[in-house]
Amino acid sequence: MNKQLETLAVNAVRILSADMVQKANSGHPGLPLGAAPIAYEVWAHQMDHNPADPEWINRDRFILSAGHGSSMLYSLLHLFGYGGLGTEDLKNFRQLGSLTPGHPEYGHTTGVEATTGPLGAGLGMAVGMAIAEKHLAAKFNREGYPVFDHYTYALCGDGCLMEGISSEAMSLAGTCGLGKLIVLYDSNSITIEGSTGIAFTEDVEKRFEAFGFQILTVEDGNDTEAIGKAVAQAKADKERPSFIKITTKIGYGVPAKEGRASAHGEPLGEENVKILRESLGWPEQEAFAVPQEVYEHYSTLARSGAAKEYFWQQMFEEYGRKYPELKAGLDAYYDEEAPLKLLDDEEFWARTGKAEATRSISGKVLNVIKDRMPNLIGGSADLGPSNKTVMNGEPDFSRTCPEGRNMHYGVRELGMTAVANGILLHGGLRTYAATFFVFSDYMKPMLRLSSLMGLPMISVLTHDSIGVGEDGPTHEPVEQLTMLRSLPNMHVFRPADEMETKAAWYSALTSLKTPTCLVLSRQNLPVLKDSGKEALRGGYILKKESSDTADILFIATGSETGVALEAALKLEEEGISARVVSMPCLDVFEEQDKAYQESVLPKNVRNRAVVEAGSSVSWGKYIGIDGCYITMDEFGASAPAGQLFEKYGFTADAVVKRVRECFAL
Amino acid sequence: MNKQLETLAVNAVRILSADMVQKANSGHPGLPLGAAPIAYEVWAHQMDHNPADPEWINRDRFILSAGHGSSMLYSLLHLFGYGGLGTEDLKNFRQLGSLTPGHPEYGHTTGVEATTGPLGAGLGMAVGMAIAEKHLAAKFNREGYPVFDHYTYALCGDGCLMEGISSEAMSLAGTCGLGKLIVLYDSNSITIEGSTGIAFTEDVEKRFEAFGFQILTVEDGNDTEAIGKAVAQAKADKERPSFIKITTKIGYGVPAKEGRASAHGEPLGEENVKILRESLGWPEQEAFAVPQEVYEHYSTLARSGAAKEYFWQQMFEEYGRKYPELKAGLDAYYDEEAPLKLLDDEEFWARTGKAEATRSISGKVLNVIKDRMPNLIGGSADLGPSNKTVMNGEPDFSRTCPEGRNMHYGVRELGMTAVANGILLHGGLRTYAATFFVFSDYMKPMLRLSSLMGLPMISVLTHDSIGVGEDGPTHEPVEQLTMLRSLPNMHVFRPADEMETKAAWYSALTSLKTPTCLVLSRQNLPVLKDSGKEALRGGYILKKESSDTADILFIATGSETGVALEAALKLEEEGISARVVSMPCLDVFEEQDKAYQESVLPKNVRNRAVVEAGSSVSWGKYIGIDGCYITMDEFGASAPAGQLFEKYGFTADAVVKRVRECFAL
Repeated sequence: MNKQLETLAVNAVRILSADMVQKANSGHPGLPLGAAPIAYEVWAHQMDHNPADPEWINRDRFILSAGHGSSMLYSLLHLFGYGGLGTEDLKNFRQLGSLTPGHPEYGHTTGVEATTGPLGAGLGMAVGMAIAEKHLAAKFNREGYPVFDHYTYALCGDGCLMEGISSEAMSLAGTCGLGKLIVLYDSNSITIEGSTGIAFTEDVEKRFEAFGFQILTVEDGNDTEAIGKAVAQAKADKERPSFIKITTKIGYGVPAKEGRASAHGEPLGEENVKILRESLGWPEQEAFAVPQEVYEHYSTLARSGAAKEYFWQQMFEEYGRKYPELKAGLDAYYDEEAPLKLLDDEEFWARTGKAEATRSISGKVLNVIKDRMPNLIGGSADLGPSNKTVMNGEPDFSRTCPEGRNMHYGVRELGMTAVANGILLHGGLRTYAATFFVFSDYMKPMLRLSSLMGLPMISVLTHDSIGVGEDGPTHEPVEQLTMLRSLPNMHVFRPADEMETKAAWYSALTSLKTPTCLVLSRQNLPVLKDSGKEALRGGYILKKESSDTADILFIATGSETGVALEAALKLEEEGISARVVSMPCLDVFEEQDKAYQESVLPKNVRNRAVVEAGSSVSWGKYIGIDGCYITMDEFGASAPAGQLFEKYGFTADAVVKRVRECFAL
Repeated sequence: MNKQLETLAVNAVRILSADMVQKANSGHPGLPLGAAPIAYEVWAHQMDHNPADPEWINRDRFILSAGHGSSMLYSLLHLFGYGGLGTEDLKNFRQLGSLTPGHPEYGHTTGVEATTGPLGAGLGMAVGMAIAEKHLAAKFNREGYPVFDHYTYALCGDGCLMEGISSEAMSLAGTCGLGKLIVLYDSNSITIEGSTGIAFTEDVEKRFEAFGFQILTVEDGNDTEAIGKAVAQAKADKERPSFIKITTKIGYGVPAKEGRASAHGEPLGEENVKILRESLGWPEQEAFAVPQEVYEHYSTLARSGAAKEYFWQQMFEEYGRKYPELKAGLDAYYDEEAPLKLLDDEEFWARTGKAEATRSISGKVLNVIKDRMPNLIGGSADLGPSNKTVMNGEPDFSRTCPEGRNMHYGVRELGMTAVANGILLHGGLRTYAATFFVFSDYMKPMLRLSSLMGLPMISVLTHDSIGVGEDGPTHEPVEQLTMLRSLPNMHVFRPADEMETKAAWYSALTSLKTPTCLVLSRQNLPVLKDSGKEALRGGYILKKESSDTADILFIATGSETGVALEAALKLEEEGISARVVSMPCLDVFEEQDKAYQESVLPKNVRNRAVVEAGSSVSWGKYIGIDGCYITMDEFGASAPAGQLFEKYGFTADAVVKRVRECFAL
């Protein structure tokens, strides 16, 4: 190795990053200056990746968990030649419509493996990727044919490690023995408020040792050789994930900023960028200028990556010839359209006509799907038996049984959601994550990333509403439906019965760019004889009014649909014509054409009532200023569920009374 | 000590708990059976508490972090004679309106120090209580007068420790050197899905050692003497918090359930309750029957607690005589009405008339308040300089400076919120917690507890909406306003300028049973000359229409209020009369009388438009089916903020165009 050229190559990352932040007059130069040697060493000499084929399924993954260091990632992508990211793109850092937004965005910039920024999220997603690799390797690799055999790297800072998600995800990684997960800790002892000493004096290495990691340290973050050796040691331990603590200096190369909090999140200033060039001995004075030899060096590295994929492809072709069935199975794993076949699957849509809890129905549906979709893995945050999310007959995923499909996440809702995102980001697998609906609160930050990344993550959220009963208000969701419905690019399904639950699952599996929350009841719900695949439109007429125009229009979801229907039938008996719209998913209903929407909710029918044991906030757009809100705008209570529905007015009689009052019917 | 009587006293807790769950046919018997000796030993012999005065400010605190073990807590409260909790109350466990709901509820049952159930929350709140104790002790104690000198105990299970919040809170506890925090770990190796081995193989003791805890172990959870010794050792270490791992058997005393997941959350069954009585040698056969000698024993213990308070009261009276100013200061700390004085505080309400970011205004307001309310402490999750939440001139709270009022929470939003709740639960202090608004997602599960407990927690949430700019969609809140507004008993203020920011702070400080979120801008906002204390009503007419009836009514909040006002003025120039309602807090507006609401939003004015760079879901109830939603229902982007407001249509011109189209004006 040409040491001088290597140094130039490292400094190219530093200079470009500093220039980007300076030009944008916005961003985070501190991390790139300190951590560039780590990222360089890993990308240049440790990772198998081919910039010409960023979708190579066996590439090593790199997640910048400390997403604010995005300029470093973009610099690397540019230098390696990923996705044609040019100097102009770097110059447009953080500008409208650029390929180089403030934080790395999956699906937006080629080579970005995950959207990061919320600290610690990347660690959780890295665990998911490593789980996916381990699972797929167990399923598909054969002796001499390591089809799936790659590492997952996550670069994190102090902030990531302070976040609780780091403990959740890393504890799980240790339990699962993710030997190919390598965590690179950019330890610079600085946070926004000052030294980490003010809030973070723990012994991080010991914490990771407790999680079951191999612990490695590099004293000098500029020593790429030592970093390389540590990574080699990390790779050598097949049983344990590795944690490499690398001591760096935030803002390295700028004396006025080095080791200071001010280096973290503000541009260095023109003068300091000049000083940086001098202190690094950078040969170019012009912003964004990089010596040709540096570009050539990166090209050489890129070609070496391409060669690695070439050899893998040869092996893979041979694999296809030797194990044609496995190869076909693998192709099926990557076939995103496979779930569409469920539309004509009679067993899937079979109607048993049994009054049942939607969580139980969901469990049965899952157990039909599991055979149709062998690439489905998933689990619960320690509530599998309650969530009904266990795939019967399938082994548990574990350290010794990576081919298992039932995940045990432990009581770690946030970590679980990040891991599920990571499994999807890896590719080849579909997944679901389950807990009590009220604890979707814990999932929220990572569900937001599911939505933002457009991942088809499926959350199975059981025990909705006051139907929870005796466990009381801490366990009774009230506002969670509204919380999730207001999240862009999220489908929230709250099915009312068997057919709607099936439609919800079908929608979840086939909405490839949108995550779905399935909100399910603990208690049995009545069968609705007129429900059906129409639920796929999000909302539909469950019961038409008996006259030309409805005197009243009910909208209801989930366990309250049956209540609304009963109320409507009572009103009809009393000569009042009533329509009932079942609206299991507002988000999908919004995606329908205007004519359909109008046919379901005619603009001229203004006597509208919503019946849902959740926050009224969701419904204003549908029932308006004059509407009758039979909703739940307070916390619930601890009592048998039936009594609670009575107390809070969710019975047919109470509903009839309310709407008669509201609309003077 | 009469060993036999002690055993009976422990078993009384077990039997009552089992009977409660059995009678309710719902609940969690496993923990009480295993952990009763721990709780008994602590309550009987370790804690200073006086059942006759549950509000004694220097009582030791006990938080059942594993809140599902509520029957154990209620049994103890009953046996010690807290709040007259009678056998009838135990028999009504988990029934409508009872004093014994499914999970412990603060403010509902005398002696319950915190609402728990969401696992790990109790650990965070315990840290807050220990911080409050340490702070108050530093402020008020004088040699020979340990006014504040108590311990905080938290009993947790495996589930609590799997949750990330445990790491966040415990790491902070170690950093702060909370020597009086004692964590009791009920280690039974069982979770709902089975053995903890399936998801939780970490070395928990080592993790806590990493956090800076003293580690103690008790091998036999029935050995109350060993538990007592361990607690004594915990107390002896003044520098470090202590973690006592106590090995227990879930479902102890019932062979069919012992050590099994099925013991956790289902009633034992009549037969097993009978077997329990036998295996414990319990003398009474009737459910809920407790031998008189056991009640007498608990009475004796209660009297000993009363004596402890008596001696403290004597010391405290002497303290009052010796340090009258300190005593007056302390009384002021506990005076909940103190903030009301701000209403006539001219400095507080002074109008500078400067265009400024509401976060900056908030910072200035805070620095006025801090002198009026010396009992205010608070801080940020490592974003103090950005959130503008630093109290100038006040030292930082730390291990060596517990009198400091500026908290450094580290990047731990969820833990921070739990800690803030704990500080308030302790009493004597007011507090705030700050982060970027988008990261209120992380806070949500604990904000829900703030609301449920009715704590006046103040969240300072800066960098709202796409005004965040370059940091891009991961940092730009869209749906968070709706998320928080839909939470019962939460005030969400999004002020538009200086006066509204002051009103928001005033409301937050004086709403004693309701938490408040202050949602503040990163960017400068224009001065609204007609804003004022009317903002205290949640919504008010900022600009009246020029004709008898408004042709259009705008509702706006925060940074969009100025935009709406500008649009309205343009429309007026064009002969269209327009009203502008500033609605900084929907929740408070909802609390106003109907006449006021009608005067602000007259029912007959139906051309209504909302202008808010957040989810439209919040607004349906106000602008209805026919309304014009100038809102933000997609994720933002990375670019300078001004460009984003333009792109997404939040300029006066764009607003004028939209409403003209909507209402054919």
